Amino acid sequence: MGATPPRSPLAPDGFPDLPVIGGVRFASVAAGVKYKGRPDVMLAVMDAGCAVAGTFTRSATRSAPVLDCQAKLGGDTGGPAAFVVNSGNSNAFTGRNGVEAVAAVTAAVASATGVPERRVFMASTGVIGEPLPHARITAKLAELNAGLDAGGIAGAADAILTTDTYPKGAGRVVSVAGGGTVSIAGIAKGSGMIAPDMATMLVYIFTDAAIGQGDLQALVSGACERTFNAITVDSDTSTSDSLLVAATGASGVDVTGDAAFAAALEEVMLDLAHQVVRDGEGATKFVEITVGGAADDAAARAIGLAIANSPLVKTAIAGEDPNWGRVVMAVGKSGQAADRDKLSIRFGDILVAENGWVSPDYREADGAAYMQQQNLVIGVDVGVGSGTATVWTCDLTHGYITINADYRS
Amino acid sequence: MGATPPRSPLAPDGFPDLPVIGGVRFASVAAGVKYKGRPDVMLAVMDAGCAVAGTFTRSATRSAPVLDCQAKLGGDTGGPAAFVVNSGNSNAFTGRNGVEAVAAVTAAVASATGVPERRVFMASTGVIGEPLPHARITAKLAELNAGLDAGGIAGAADAILTTDTYPKGAGRVVSVAGGGTVSIAGIAKGSGMIAPDMATMLVYIFTDAAIGQGDLQALVSGACERTFNAITVDSDTSTSDSLLVAATGASGVDVTGDAAFAAALEEVMLDLAHQVVRDGEGATKFVEITVGGAADDAAARAIGLAIANSPLVKTAIAGEDPNWGRVVMAVGKSGQAADRDKLSIRFGDILVAENGWVSPDYREADGAAYMQQQNLVIGVDVGVGSGTATVWTCDLTHGYITINADYRS
Repeated sequence: MGATPPRSPLAPDGFPDLPVIGGVRFASVAAGVKYKGRPDVMLAVMDAGCAVAGTFTRSATRSAPVLDCQAKLGGDTGGPAAFVVNSGNSNAFTGRNGVEAVAAVTAAVASATGVPERRVFMASTGVIGEPLPHARITAKLAELNAGLDAGGIAGAADAILTTDTYPKGAGRVVSVAGGGTVSIAGIAKGSGMIAPDMATMLVYIFTDAAIGQGDLQALVSGACERTFNAITVDSDTSTSDSLLVAATGASGVDVTGDAAFAAALEEVMLDLAHQVVRDGEGATKFVEITVGGAADDAAARAIGLAIANSPLVKTAIAGEDPNWGRVVMAVGKSGQAADRDKLSIRFGDILVAENGWVSPDYREADGAAYMQQQNLVIGVDVGVGSGTATVWTCDLTHGYITINADYRS
Repeated sequence: MGATPPRSPLAPDGFPDLPVIGGVRFASVAAGVKYKGRPDVMLAVMDAGCAVAGTFTRSATRSAPVLDCQAKLGGDTGGPAAFVVNSGNSNAFTGRNGVEAVAAVTAAVASATGVPERRVFMASTGVIGEPLPHARITAKLAELNAGLDAGGIAGAADAILTTDTYPKGAGRVVSVAGGGTVSIAGIAKGSGMIAPDMATMLVYIFTDAAIGQGDLQALVSGACERTFNAITVDSDTSTSDSLLVAATGASGVDVTGDAAFAAALEEVMLDLAHQVVRDGEGATKFVEITVGGAADDAAARAIGLAIANSPLVKTAIAGEDPNWGRVVMAVGKSGQAADRDKLSIRFGDILVAENGWVSPDYREADGAAYMQQQNLVIGVDVGVGSGTATVWTCDLTHGYITINADYRS
């Protein structure tokens, strides 16, 4: 967290133009929680009639704000709601002080905005184990409330960043089968301590669609498995990661059971998930790993993640080395069934290995040329069943070491 | 595998003086399997009356030599035996050619030495997926057989190295409760692709003790869990790793059920396991992680390995950063039960965190000073039960990236 690192070479060209979502307003401010001279707190306030769904880290040491959100989620639906997020301090492993900090901030948000405290969802991201200076946040709530603006989402995306090198946003406008259109806009942060088995980072998605809380939660939980829980930067799982989706209903268009809405929501989630990988600490390559022929989909996913998390595979990719032997190794260590003598491996469209050995037509020069691309696809078929999965990761470079071995200060 | 890297800063002062083991002779030779101008094949021949035990990688894609050893082990006991090992090529994922290569070499060893082929155990270590040029090995067998020497163990230790920066040896002389002494001498190789769930690397241990194959196997399997299966460099699991222990009985001293022998054998295994960690690719710190208060010993071990394999913990150690928040994170992601509010963390004797927060007496300067040491102990108590485990690892540095992101050539 020293000097700002350069923008990831895998970053998109810029922050997208996101649709304005009826029923939501945003504000952000520089509260000096830890960082100086940059916005570090964002507030989003949703009008009455809003459904909120979410998923959270499964860490056994999850933070006080995560526990508070989990207790609140689904317990009360349909009123106004608020999200308040600070960067710079995760308020994780802060004991009783952590619980008090969450209560102080959510009470202050309720007081400033009129949203019931049981509908105020907090998240914090940054260093673990230091007390959150919550008075710096509560001191800014009047200013935040006064600044709420339907067009403020880009500022909110900036305020939640930590080691990210760019803000992340994605949106869609969807025509619903029953008539009418709805809009979706989401923001995310995250670039390290990213691995599945959790919501993986901070993500906030807003839509003006009308949908009940239970239906929204089912959509979000299902799509999370194929998006945020299918990415990994470094196999490490944060204590704080949270995904919240707010559906305001302001469009008046009911999307219950609508396939186009479900698909668009998952597209936004996948877009944001990919942007997190593309901002992986030190990343220079974006890697899609597709696994087929596994015992079932869960086995395929475990094999994909074994490949995606292997330091030897990730360093080979960094070195543009078509070292398919390391892919074989990672399949072998996954703990899942694989038939060594039916295993096949592809780099993009290049058949590298098949039937338990290098393909007779494979030429190392072809593999080496392929590995020089910035976006790579590694395809594996393990030859035992019909389970499939796709996961995404990045390479492991000197940049990751430099970012994470710098003394915390 | 380019220029020889400098000797690890964690290396011992030199190769130890190992006891000569009656009933075993060693030879090594430069066969040019891959490397030029250095010994790359070793042969060990044990006289009749030898018991052989072993453990192997559990990889689903394990190599032809591993499968051949597993098929032979325990099936025939008491005769002479031989170990033949080449470096430079792992003969893994080489299809039918791999099986033929093993058969060719083990038949040639049998022919040259008079050891029955069913008692010839082969191992290969090096690049995956390239055909083993086995004729280069068989061409040297007459020379190897002629060079067999009871004092040749140091040369054998050199011949099995790949990316290692030093040869690894350990020995003990043990007084047995029933009278008499026996000797143990072992060698190992390994510095990357090291993780548990396997025998972890190539290890050969020899003793002149008299013990039955079944008893020896039980001792080896038990001790392996607390030694080679309790270390990790990078979480990656090789397709080739093998541990073989030969007990020649030449001392005439029966060690069946002898506690001193069992302890000494485990000491040799632990010594070699630690030497492998100390030669971890790019390692600058040797780290012991002790876990207590877990649901059971297996849970403690899983928590220890989650810490030991966390890139964020390992880079913090590389940066001499007492970043105990990352230890909390790793405990949380382990998937094992932990009481966040009873969790305690120690760096050496320094109590860093307790009762779910930083210890009131902890000073960051103390933690920072401690982290500058070369040998570190991280102690964690997760506050839910009485399970304990100790695992060992090293840090994750630029050196690891440099070694593994170099294009394979």
